[in-house]
Amino acid sequence: MALRAALRNRFALSGFVSQLSSCSSHGRVCSSSVLATQERSNSTSSKMSVDFDQSTGVAVMRMKSLPVNSLSLDFLTEFCINVEKLEMDKSCRGLIITSTLPKVFSAGLDILEMYGKSPERCGEFWKAVQEMWLKVYSSNMVTIAAINGSSPAGGCLMSLTCDHRIMVDNPRYSIGLNETQLGIVAPFWFKDTMVNTVGHRTTEMALGLGLLYSPTEALKIGLVDQIVPEDKLMTVSEEIMAKWLAIPDHARQITKSMMRKPTIDKLMSKREADIQNFVSFITKDSIQKSLHMYLEMLKKRKA
Amino acid sequence: MALRAALRNRFALSGFVSQLSSCSSHGRVCSSSVLATQERSNSTSSKMSVDFDQSTGVAVMRMKSLPVNSLSLDFLTEFCINVEKLEMDKSCRGLIITSTLPKVFSAGLDILEMYGKSPERCGEFWKAVQEMWLKVYSSNMVTIAAINGSSPAGGCLMSLTCDHRIMVDNPRYSIGLNETQLGIVAPFWFKDTMVNTVGHRTTEMALGLGLLYSPTEALKIGLVDQIVPEDKLMTVSEEIMAKWLAIPDHARQITKSMMRKPTIDKLMSKREADIQNFVSFITKDSIQKSLHMYLEMLKKRKA
Amino acid sequence: MALRAALRNRFALSGFVSQLSSCSSHGRVCSSSVLATQERSNSTSSKMSVDFDQSTGVAVMRMKSLPVNSLSLDFLTEFCINVEKLEMDKSCRGLIITSTLPKVFSAGLDILEMYGKSPERCGEFWKAVQEMWLKVYSSNMVTIAAINGSSPAGGCLMSLTCDHRIMVDNPRYSIGLNETQLGIVAPFWFKDTMVNTVGHRTTEMALGLGLLYSPTEALKIGLVDQIVPEDKLMTVSEEIMAKWLAIPDHARQITKSMMRKPTIDKLMSKREADIQNFVSFITKDSIQKSLHMYLEMLKKRKA
Repeated sequence: MALRAALRNRFALSGFVSQLSSCSSHGRVCSSSVLATQERSNSTSSKMSVDFDQSTGVAVMRMKSLPVNSLSLDFLTEFCINVEKLEMDKSCRGLIITSTLPKVFSAGLDILEMYGKSPERCGEFWKAVQEMWLKVYSSNMVTIAAINGSSPAGGCLMSLTCDHRIMVDNPRYSIGLNETQLGIVAPFWFKDTMVNTVGHRTTEMALGLGLLYSPTEALKIGLVDQIVPEDKLMTVSEEIMAKWLAIPDHARQITKSMMRKPTIDKLMSKREADIQNFVSFITKDSIQKSLHMYLEMLKKRKA
Repeated sequence: MALRAALRNRFALSGFVSQLSSCSSHGRVCSSSVLATQERSNSTSSKMSVDFDQSTGVAVMRMKSLPVNSLSLDFLTEFCINVEKLEMDKSCRGLIITSTLPKVFSAGLDILEMYGKSPERCGEFWKAVQEMWLKVYSSNMVTIAAINGSSPAGGCLMSLTCDHRIMVDNPRYSIGLNETQLGIVAPFWFKDTMVNTVGHRTTEMALGLGLLYSPTEALKIGLVDQIVPEDKLMTVSEEIMAKWLAIPDHARQITKSMMRKPTIDKLMSKREADIQNFVSFITKDSIQKSLHMYLEMLKKRKA
Repeated sequence: MALRAALRNRFALSGFVSQLSSCSSHGRVCSSSVLATQERSNSTSSKMSVDFDQSTGVAVMRMKSLPVNSLSLDFLTEFCINVEKLEMDKSCRGLIITSTLPKVFSAGLDILEMYGKSPERCGEFWKAVQEMWLKVYSSNMVTIAAINGSSPAGGCLMSLTCDHRIMVDNPRYSIGLNETQLGIVAPFWFKDTMVNTVGHRTTEMALGLGLLYSPTEALKIGLVDQIVPEDKLMTVSEEIMAKWLAIPDHARQITKSMMRKPTIDKLMSKREADIQNFVSFITKDSIQKSLHMYLEMLKKRKA
């Protein structure tokens, strides 16, 4: 696909995907840090690690991109390559996505990718956001989001694309598609994914008001499937994963495809138009001004 | 549009809309009673008043058409003109709809408009019902139904078209699309609006059994968003309005359109067929007989 | 229709349907056992009885096919003929479906119809499953499932096609579309029916994990409408039936059709493809092997 080619050129990653695959099929644990020693020109190790346990067939992806796992173009590119690698490895049946950073799962799309960038670069970025969603929402693996921190906007979207969402029960953490609060708009496929999860009316309220939910509230509306104490997160995630893996893969995969294909087909058929729509929206003077004010506010808050 | 032209002819209202607009853009409060002094041939003041507070950008429409705010052709015509006027006033960002009558928000469609009337008149009436729904469901304003009394059938529909529903917590009040109890049928766009609000199964039960819900029940199924003591209704409505208005208008409006456009487009593409369908149904002998019996029952109950 | 013709040939049932009709229009009670005395070549009486009370307009169908009301081709054929007969009898307005067997409502599709059978026979069977769903989901009668025992897979589907589900509150009973646990897949119209009942996300979880719910859990997610003590089941079912029958038939029927027609039209337009899809899936070696293992497990459990 065009994106794949683009990604490979950007990072000079030709052959990278196949190397990752061969690694995972030979070694029990295959993390980005291990790869980094083989391919030192690649700095992906600072963003996430992937540990694949062949005895269980389950991989754990730990996001660790300081300070808040922002979904930059680089981050998304590495994320997609890792997911694709696991997808191609027949022995990998499940994927748990979590964060190593304190208090945050992912802060969502990197605003710096949307501010002061050329239309071409914005389009490239948006294509990578689409790719992340497409890869996880259509994955043949069982995907579990182990949400151990706040997960606004794009972080919420990443969670929504998984088969199961388990969130740490800490009232300081929040999750939701709060784009309208920043003056931007969650596109139709963010919306579709949320409608599929919590229904039409809850989505209308959530998107219209840009709501962020506490774990307890998120559980109540079905935005997450369960909440657990922080120290139980990985244990519970593995238990839930075992329940999903007890179902024969082919039956589970056909069922998953039946549930999600219409939503995936919709984006696939409008993918280019969606990119054009994003680029023309985000490069508007008024939107750029909003983002500028938001970034200034963030700077002041830090200082 | 054809309806607009028809409405103007009917009430000789040419120029009326623009006068309303200019009024609201100059004066802080613009009620139908004020207008009545300018345009005495118009009796709209007896049906509703509109107060627009330019300092907040919020208008309050108070329905006061004795005895039960029935949605007659005249009522709907005035309602639509008022909403359109506010819509065209860029300074008006929010609309709260409520009633001044005790115990009733709106009793719904005026049965007298459906009984013993010519097909032409029935068609004109139905077009006005559609127009009311289209205007509010697609409004760029934040719309809140402050439901301070019973709200069956068309009264429920009017509430459902708003962005937010707040109902007085009085167990004597009820709300629901109870058309089947009268032997008539809520059309597809009533149904679609309810499905968008409470989901498919709850709608199937509600319409099939013609259910009316108490405020507590309505809250439980999501037919209203919150219930409050009668004396808190307007305060809470204003607080909720402030939350919606804290979201930048353009992001909120694009999001609202994304959620509602498919439902609106569906009626727009079938509008004429829906009118024909209503007229041929309502003018059937069997249905006219049902309505006759219902009206006789109402008369006896009064006496 | 082709199916009807096939069914008649299979059981040499020409004229059977009209005899059933004339029976029900003359006698107050018309059960299969009565019919069996008239038409001894037919053994349908061992599978179910139908009692129609003309004074109430309500028929009760009691499934009694030992050991677990499996939905075999013979069972489905008799079921469809009985429903069609009642449908054609204008005086029959309601149908309650229940079981006389202890602990089980219906164990679902008969696995023996799917194991070691010719593609032609598999296709004939699947067409009968479709016919059962089509007949009940589109019935002009009010249909109530009085679920007095476990109701997995096809048994759950039968319940979902009714207008109302009342389940006995016994934690040993369970209900759900658990096909994936057997390595098979609920087809799109099973899925559509469940989405219409409990929403998209609950269906995704339920089908993906092959979940069976206790009555309390089923009530919580809306898979059943109420739960009652075993000895109140028929009384409550009759009370609920009376509420539905209080609504004028024509209004109720038009409303029901409006809610269900899109789902019905979808299967109708894909009916042949759905049969081909089922046949090619179920006759796969891998699936036949799975079914073999499942049947062996059942045999061992019995022994």
